[in-house]
Amino acid sequence: MLGTKNRSSGRGHDVKRPSIGDVARHAGVSTATVSRALNAPGTVAEKTRRKVQQAVDALHYVQSETARNFKKQRASAVLVVASDIGNIYYSEIFRGIQRRAEASNYAISIANPSPGGTREMILSTLRTARVDGVIILSGHQIADADLGLLRQLYAGPPPLVALSEERGSLKIPHVLIDNERAGCLAGRHLVAMGHKRIGHVQGPHDTPVRRARRNGLRRALAEAGLSLDADHLFEGGFNAEGGRAAAERFLTLEERPTAVFCANDEAAMGFIAQLHHHGIAVPRDLSVMGFDDIALADTYVPALTTVHQPREEMGREAMGLLLDIIEKRLADPVPVVELPVHLVPRDSVRAFDDGSGKQ
Amino acid sequence: MLGTKNRSSGRGHDVKRPSIGDVARHAGVSTATVSRALNAPGTVAEKTRRKVQQAVDALHYVQSETARNFKKQRASAVLVVASDIGNIYYSEIFRGIQRRAEASNYAISIANPSPGGTREMILSTLRTARVDGVIILSGHQIADADLGLLRQLYAGPPPLVALSEERGSLKIPHVLIDNERAGCLAGRHLVAMGHKRIGHVQGPHDTPVRRARRNGLRRALAEAGLSLDADHLFEGGFNAEGGRAAAERFLTLEERPTAVFCANDEAAMGFIAQLHHHGIAVPRDLSVMGFDDIALADTYVPALTTVHQPREEMGREAMGLLLDIIEKRLADPVPVVELPVHLVPRDSVRAFDDGSGKQ
Repeated sequence: MLGTKNRSSGRGHDVKRPSIGDVARHAGVSTATVSRALNAPGTVAEKTRRKVQQAVDALHYVQSETARNFKKQRASAVLVVASDIGNIYYSEIFRGIQRRAEASNYAISIANPSPGGTREMILSTLRTARVDGVIILSGHQIADADLGLLRQLYAGPPPLVALSEERGSLKIPHVLIDNERAGCLAGRHLVAMGHKRIGHVQGPHDTPVRRARRNGLRRALAEAGLSLDADHLFEGGFNAEGGRAAAERFLTLEERPTAVFCANDEAAMGFIAQLHHHGIAVPRDLSVMGFDDIALADTYVPALTTVHQPREEMGREAMGLLLDIIEKRLADPVPVVELPVHLVPRDSVRAFDDGSGKQ
Repeated sequence: MLGTKNRSSGRGHDVKRPSIGDVARHAGVSTATVSRALNAPGTVAEKTRRKVQQAVDALHYVQSETARNFKKQRASAVLVVASDIGNIYYSEIFRGIQRRAEASNYAISIANPSPGGTREMILSTLRTARVDGVIILSGHQIADADLGLLRQLYAGPPPLVALSEERGSLKIPHVLIDNERAGCLAGRHLVAMGHKRIGHVQGPHDTPVRRARRNGLRRALAEAGLSLDADHLFEGGFNAEGGRAAAERFLTLEERPTAVFCANDEAAMGFIAQLHHHGIAVPRDLSVMGFDDIALADTYVPALTTVHQPREEMGREAMGLLLDIIEKRLADPVPVVELPVHLVPRDSVRAFDDGSGKQ
């Protein structure tokens, strides 16, 4: 740690590590205030805290006492940062994190930062070492500059792991599935069941997952000499309402697909429920496939054919990676753990039968 | 605060407040260690921390600095303590807490204590004022002695609110529904739909909710001169597996009920799905009712008739009560907020028709 030079400082000539006095002068406050702002942020005014934080950022100040005490100060607790605590998709991820944490006697706490406050929450939590590490659920990333600073503070990889939607350019360890491959798996299953006109209820706008699952489906169709008709590509999203809306558009089509792959299980359930209201039965009249294999997919009527996303295992793996960092067992500097998905054939997809006039 | 006498101290003659030195002597450690154990528990050995905590408990020691600084030290954060973070039942409660918290610029964090560690987590969090308050989800209670101590520390009601399963003898503000009345509401609906042989898939063993919902159903039947046949009372629980198991027992009956009220929606879904596998269709052959109105109840096939438990509102109310305590607006010392439930008639219950031989 002491050998690390502060290369990224804005003040190019300054190779000396900035002191707490430097931060205090830069912020125009006392050193005691700097210390309180960093270690007990609740005790200073928000404006002061922000001024100190700006000085810390500008000088790339590293709290030496915090750094020195890391090993002794283990809190045996990690923080999970999630954008929407109420989302049932997260339930099994939380459970996986929790079980792995319990096995190592770590407590977990889950926080839901105010919109836009994610980065600040992660940095302040790690700087003050209130927890031993942080898991960021998908959608939350952190800037390279922040990582550089944390790297210096921790004299190595900061204890930060993401559950991610895509490989992208993340510079921290992360756990993910290959969503394009998974979409392709779904498409191949529908093709194998004899379907030729296949539709898709898409994931939420502007998400990597939307593109990846759709592209995977396209690939499976192309392999079979089929294509994804623009009329058969429905807006949907990741909830039942989106699936219902897609069903309403489906009903207006003259030439309907015989099978529809929905971007997740909740959308598939909404799609099926809405068609049911219009007298269209799944799988009698139409095959429908979901994605995720949520707890209730198996309990739906019809039981939902879907792609299993190993969410509990993803949570476990993320927590495992984090413990590897905390306990200095990490070999690979930025490991990426890609977990396999698998098809779960149930009752909502059936073989297409051209002879009968309808499926 | 300074006027409060330490009446509950075990040492009857001692009306002086114990000092940090008293705690240190009692625990056989230095005052610095006591301070660290209370304010930065991660920095001392677990054994030492426990020794200090025992001394604090024995002497009813109140950290004067913490007490003095409460107003200044507002963290604008509250802790939610839940036994099973991965339970989808909690999702909407979390969301309600989160929305109310955001409206007042409070951050929330959710913690899942190790088994048996709930009381310790709550006490240490409140004593060290790391958050402004705690919401305990159902099933977690705290001893009267702890409350006495917290009351003294906070010079008034401690910032502690429960989402509770029953009125019971809880001495802290809590939010709940009347589960017996709700069970009665379900029963009256089935009776009003013409059903006379009504069954019940019960909630988990040894829970107040199990007794209350079953008793409510019994009351509704008694009002109509009907009774709950012992053969029609199934073990179930709060998940789909329990509902499936109940369905298997249902199938062995010679004289089956024409309607079944399940203790929650997940059990109802499992019950229906399992009957579906055996060719029994709901509501054609049997009416089934759930409880809770979870997000997917509406999206089930058939859409589930159920009793709406206002979980998001319960979360909001609990957070609102907590803010009232934190911000000293509380009029009633131990308010109990009972929220109304309502029936949601959908497709899984239909009128019983004696004429047809089957429903």
